[in-house]
Amino acid sequence: MHNNTVTPVAVLGASGYVGRELIGLLDEHPDVGVAFATSQTERDVLGHRSVPLEAADGRWSDVGMVFSCLPHGVSAPVVERARVAGARVIDLSSDLRLSDRAVYGLTEVARPALPEAAVVANPGCYPTAALIALLPFARAGLIDTTRPIVINAASGVSGAGRSPKRELLFAEVAEDFRAYGVGNVHRHLPEITGHLTPLTGPADIVFTPHLLPVRRGILSTVHVPVMEPLEREAGERVLLDAYAGEPCIRVIRGGIPSLRDVVYRNRVALGVTPVQHVSRPMLTVVSAIDNLVKGAAGQAIQNMNVMLRLPETQGLLC
Amino acid sequence: MHNNTVTPVAVLGASGYVGRELIGLLDEHPDVGVAFATSQTERDVLGHRSVPLEAADGRWSDVGMVFSCLPHGVSAPVVERARVAGARVIDLSSDLRLSDRAVYGLTEVARPALPEAAVVANPGCYPTAALIALLPFARAGLIDTTRPIVINAASGVSGAGRSPKRELLFAEVAEDFRAYGVGNVHRHLPEITGHLTPLTGPADIVFTPHLLPVRRGILSTVHVPVMEPLEREAGERVLLDAYAGEPCIRVIRGGIPSLRDVVYRNRVALGVTPVQHVSRPMLTVVSAIDNLVKGAAGQAIQNMNVMLRLPETQGLLC
Amino acid sequence: MHNNTVTPVAVLGASGYVGRELIGLLDEHPDVGVAFATSQTERDVLGHRSVPLEAADGRWSDVGMVFSCLPHGVSAPVVERARVAGARVIDLSSDLRLSDRAVYGLTEVARPALPEAAVVANPGCYPTAALIALLPFARAGLIDTTRPIVINAASGVSGAGRSPKRELLFAEVAEDFRAYGVGNVHRHLPEITGHLTPLTGPADIVFTPHLLPVRRGILSTVHVPVMEPLEREAGERVLLDAYAGEPCIRVIRGGIPSLRDVVYRNRVALGVTPVQHVSRPMLTVVSAIDNLVKGAAGQAIQNMNVMLRLPETQGLLC
Amino acid sequence: MHNNTVTPVAVLGASGYVGRELIGLLDEHPDVGVAFATSQTERDVLGHRSVPLEAADGRWSDVGMVFSCLPHGVSAPVVERARVAGARVIDLSSDLRLSDRAVYGLTEVARPALPEAAVVANPGCYPTAALIALLPFARAGLIDTTRPIVINAASGVSGAGRSPKRELLFAEVAEDFRAYGVGNVHRHLPEITGHLTPLTGPADIVFTPHLLPVRRGILSTVHVPVMEPLEREAGERVLLDAYAGEPCIRVIRGGIPSLRDVVYRNRVALGVTPVQHVSRPMLTVVSAIDNLVKGAAGQAIQNMNVMLRLPETQGLLC
Repeated sequence: MHNNTVTPVAVLGASGYVGRELIGLLDEHPDVGVAFATSQTERDVLGHRSVPLEAADGRWSDVGMVFSCLPHGVSAPVVERARVAGARVIDLSSDLRLSDRAVYGLTEVARPALPEAAVVANPGCYPTAALIALLPFARAGLIDTTRPIVINAASGVSGAGRSPKRELLFAEVAEDFRAYGVGNVHRHLPEITGHLTPLTGPADIVFTPHLLPVRRGILSTVHVPVMEPLEREAGERVLLDAYAGEPCIRVIRGGIPSLRDVVYRNRVALGVTPVQHVSRPMLTVVSAIDNLVKGAAGQAIQNMNVMLRLPETQGLLC
Repeated sequence: MHNNTVTPVAVLGASGYVGRELIGLLDEHPDVGVAFATSQTERDVLGHRSVPLEAADGRWSDVGMVFSCLPHGVSAPVVERARVAGARVIDLSSDLRLSDRAVYGLTEVARPALPEAAVVANPGCYPTAALIALLPFARAGLIDTTRPIVINAASGVSGAGRSPKRELLFAEVAEDFRAYGVGNVHRHLPEITGHLTPLTGPADIVFTPHLLPVRRGILSTVHVPVMEPLEREAGERVLLDAYAGEPCIRVIRGGIPSLRDVVYRNRVALGVTPVQHVSRPMLTVVSAIDNLVKGAAGQAIQNMNVMLRLPETQGLLC
Repeated sequence: MHNNTVTPVAVLGASGYVGRELIGLLDEHPDVGVAFATSQTERDVLGHRSVPLEAADGRWSDVGMVFSCLPHGVSAPVVERARVAGARVIDLSSDLRLSDRAVYGLTEVARPALPEAAVVANPGCYPTAALIALLPFARAGLIDTTRPIVINAASGVSGAGRSPKRELLFAEVAEDFRAYGVGNVHRHLPEITGHLTPLTGPADIVFTPHLLPVRRGILSTVHVPVMEPLEREAGERVLLDAYAGEPCIRVIRGGIPSLRDVVYRNRVALGVTPVQHVSRPMLTVVSAIDNLVKGAAGQAIQNMNVMLRLPETQGLLC
Repeated sequence: MHNNTVTPVAVLGASGYVGRELIGLLDEHPDVGVAFATSQTERDVLGHRSVPLEAADGRWSDVGMVFSCLPHGVSAPVVERARVAGARVIDLSSDLRLSDRAVYGLTEVARPALPEAAVVANPGCYPTAALIALLPFARAGLIDTTRPIVINAASGVSGAGRSPKRELLFAEVAEDFRAYGVGNVHRHLPEITGHLTPLTGPADIVFTPHLLPVRRGILSTVHVPVMEPLEREAGERVLLDAYAGEPCIRVIRGGIPSLRDVVYRNRVALGVTPVQHVSRPMLTVVSAIDNLVKGAAGQAIQNMNVMLRLPETQGLLC
């Protein structure tokens, strides 16, 4: 079924939830094929026999794209070795997301730079949901930075990884709901700030993640102080104009998205509404993604498609 | 096991989740007994044969306390009839929560007024969680009202009632998470504002509830702009001082509560932390309750205990 | 992307869980298109404007296939009207599953009869899981009918339909598990018996369904008394031989399937193991399907593909 | 509130789910107090500072009862040391459940032997549910052992323990359902057989446990071949007669129990119905317990109460 122009790709660190999601998507993609996958812990990943990471070093020239799902801290030096050996790399760790050495791969923003990029830093799941909600208002100069932007987000448990930890057991998580990283100490905050404040100028941003008893999905409820009152339609117009023609972004007019609208899809769903009963104008923007798809593996494939000049949504359900 | 001073009580509208929780708690309470319960839809509520609401009108003088779990709008006139007939009433509907005709029964605030009260309006579940978090900072004059107070709250599905609705089916709610009443249109906002702003002066409050795929519990993540920087210990001190000796409030020092800490208990668990990386000081206070207990039936019993001069936590697990 | 030989199809009763799953699958299918959908309750089903059922009667000749997801009892007369008007029909109700007027559409059995069939009765979800597990052993003459065949099955909540019922509310189903139809009173029993005992002769079959707090999936644990001892490999060999080349059936050698192996797929996963510590030989066969896919909408499309002489798994993920 | 005859008790291996449930129940019990608890992994168990297991050896004479929640294999030698030192012991591990050295503590059966017992082996969770369902029919001589007894049981995840394992992560278990120990290889089978077949004579018993995506509870669906046809009422009469006056057993007349009826309670709920459409008579008995309460910690306290000649349900909600 694959034609003879299938591009071989490599997946490093394939046995976590992101790696497995990526393998699954790549297996359905008509234009690429997994040449090899590495894992330190599992011999077989969804039918692909894995090799140790060390075995990858002799094989960079065999593949047209390398995906690194290695842990934060471990990934950067491996990405560098692959790059030096001539490979193109999409790094799904956080190592390069604030670095000049990589293109920040929020596809809808990065698109022009991707075809020539050697290394792409795939965005974090929380920042993807938050930035897609905020960037249009920032670019339009509508955000009032004298008041804080408050981002409350909740993620499914797959976002916490596949390593066995007591606090992630079913009997601990089910019927519970908790905030974590409260007080702006989550490592995703700098990624949000770093890509937003160049547009808004200095701004107070409060980001609070929560752990949700679902398997996948992120819902971000983003409260945005604005310079002037905007009706719902005007707020929607800002989003619609910013994302006109975008295949992976859906603005829900007159509504608010939930996880149901996005799971298993490479999609950001957005809704916006003005806040009533306040003396100074604010909007609430709700943004939903699947943390494993548009928040990780799906966006990586979307980036790969642009880098390889394939149709952008090839192999993806948007 | 019950002695001969057991007080007979009535429960109106007993077949919903709140009514049933109340019946269950009253059945375990050593000093009261359910004399009659009304329901329009169920003949038997947890072993109590129910009567139609109409049958209650001849029986007000038989009971030492009436609990109304009737729907909003339906409750107020029934409460009035009972009051006129000499009964004492705790109204769990929202009808009287902003009315001069009832004591607002947030027990920790209302305690002095309860022993003489004829009618008590039991607080809503969301307002209980939010007000217990905010009132100490408001009373201490610490809240900076030039910036908005942002309350993000998530409730278990029992908070939406027991009437069959498609959007509350298991197959709709499981693995989903959604915001509702976005933009300050939820009917609980005036209850929060009405009991907070007398202490703070006019303030912008943004309240956004969410529907959580759990059966019970509310977690409120409350972002509070403050006049001056407070370390974690100073924030905790404000809460500890305000709630010293309170049997149903737990301040978690150095931590943040989750639903696990409060379900099936008549308890508010609180944690507070300063927000880092902002130019003007803020605190995040997290408040957890069981929506059916401290958020409804349990607080009603706590109020009854004070009204009847019984030990305040009699029959309650705090 | 669709070519000009797209076959128009109709979906009757499109707004339940099965109807919606079917619409979703048909929308992704390259060779067919939804010409019209009917619903009494929803104006729009996943982007398709619906018409009342009455409007269908003038349109039977417009479509190359009619899918009826109408309720049991309602479906049969409509199917008959469509058939008389010349339409081919796949009936997803239970009305015709034991009738001579339709081909019983367990695809793996019915395949030869499908290309010429006018009306196909799509099997029930529980019978699909049970029969696929049992038929190979029945055909091989291995089942000992002097002892009962015991089928314990558990289904996700979508199997109970999308009509609002109190007992299907999230707050009722979550953290619960219950048996229903205990004592062989479930309406699916005759469908299992009717298609099994022609092969085995009279047999005692005990079928007990359970309601599982998950959204989709059926797991059937089937205990089969056998005439002679079979090792695991021999039991697997019976299944492998029976289903050699079947694209939608997976025999898990040396293992036992779970819901995770089948949800969102048009697949039956099977495992078998001999029962130890018994004096007379038995096998336990475990069978897993997605109740909405291979148990309903997916199998309907698999049947349609064969009826229309399309590739059997076109538009399906197996 | 505690009087001066409080009995000090010890809990060994307190940090698992069973140990913690036990600590929680003991803390609410009016007649006993936790003198010490041991844990190798946690310094604090629900407010009790723990000591290493080694420290227990000098303290056996300090306590009136020792509860061992130690792992299988580890428990027996410690229990023996405690016994030799004169302590009375309730062993919640499986080590002594088939041993002459301990009374098998299914309270409803063991009651006469408990007051003088030195060592009690607390039954396993699955055997408790199965034996309470089967023993009355076995004692009445009603079971037809020429056909197999088939026990299908499903347990909440807390039954699998609190050690971090990948297969118990929320993201693995949620929305899944699986059989395990298929083919009579689960270690609980000999416990069921060993306590049942002395009454029935040799019998084929097929026991298949399943892992349920809930936190607590076991539902056992038990198919019992019987010597003669019994109507529902006759089957219920067997259970009612066997358990007349039992405070912790509820026979649901005309119904079938579910987990909802038993969680957080020290209760077995039972229902029975004849199987229709079979040529030889069978009953299906459904039995529900909370695996952590009547299946472990609650039954241990029930046993302790009898051993110490306290009211049998003291400190328990039945």
